[in-house]
Amino acid sequence: MTPQTTLKPIGEIVTPYKVLADCPRNIDPNGPPCELVLRGDLRDGLLGLATGQRILILYWLEHAERSVLRQNSRRTGELAGVFALRTPNRPNPIGVAVLPIEQIIDSVITVRGLDCLDGTPLLDIKPAMSGE
Amino acid sequence: MTPQTTLKPIGEIVTPYKVLADCPRNIDPNGPPCELVLRGDLRDGLLGLATGQRILILYWLEHAERSVLRQNSRRTGELAGVFALRTPNRPNPIGVAVLPIEQIIDSVITVRGLDCLDGTPLLDIKPAMSGE
Repeated sequence: MTPQTTLKPIGEIVTPYKVLADCPRNIDPNGPPCELVLRGDLRDGLLGLATGQRILILYWLEHAERSVLRQNSRRTGELAGVFALRTPNRPNPIGVAVLPIEQIIDSVITVRGLDCLDGTPLLDIKPAMSGE
Repeated sequence: MTPQTTLKPIGEIVTPYKVLADCPRNIDPNGPPCELVLRGDLRDGLLGLATGQRILILYWLEHAERSVLRQNSRRTGELAGVFALRTPNRPNPIGVAVLPIEQIIDSVITVRGLDCLDGTPLLDIKPAMSGE
């Protein structure tokens, strides 16, 4: 493991959810507004993103259990591996969401319906490709 | 930054590309076979994944430049922020691909057409959702 495999959060996510029990279980493009608040020194990295564009958002689910390998599927009730589930519990608890940009003002991007806690570390924003 | 934001590679990716100049510039579902070789101790995490299923693959682009914030778009030639591009160069160089599973044997999953170097650290595998 080199030092380069250390993540550097690029900002944080503002959501309505203050405790895990409040978090919705899925992304919902019609859910409440959430803000991707980029660190001010990284603002130059947003050049070219536009309202309406679909972005792929990566974030760090810091309260996840990283050593669990199997758990019951919420959908089927059956035991499944974490790599076959979207549970936050996994060796590298990186959340992924694809959502359209509702608004960009300065270094704050608004989207709707993220499923994570208020204050979640933001890791990356990429333009989504078709099929994502 | 807490110790929890350190990534733990879950395996590595076998591709035909030994140097960066050989890597294709995009994911190609019809490209050559590539293997996601999971660490043996994590094999239990694969339970429930099946041939044909679309998976979202996260990997670590360890040769990326992490301090670049703007570069020219390969597609348009225009200057753009790294968060508006799919370039590996970004603060957290996590690659994302969505591809169908061609084969699973033990702890090795075969897919086609990844764009990364042979030996790239594998970070996560998730079932892709519709729209991803």
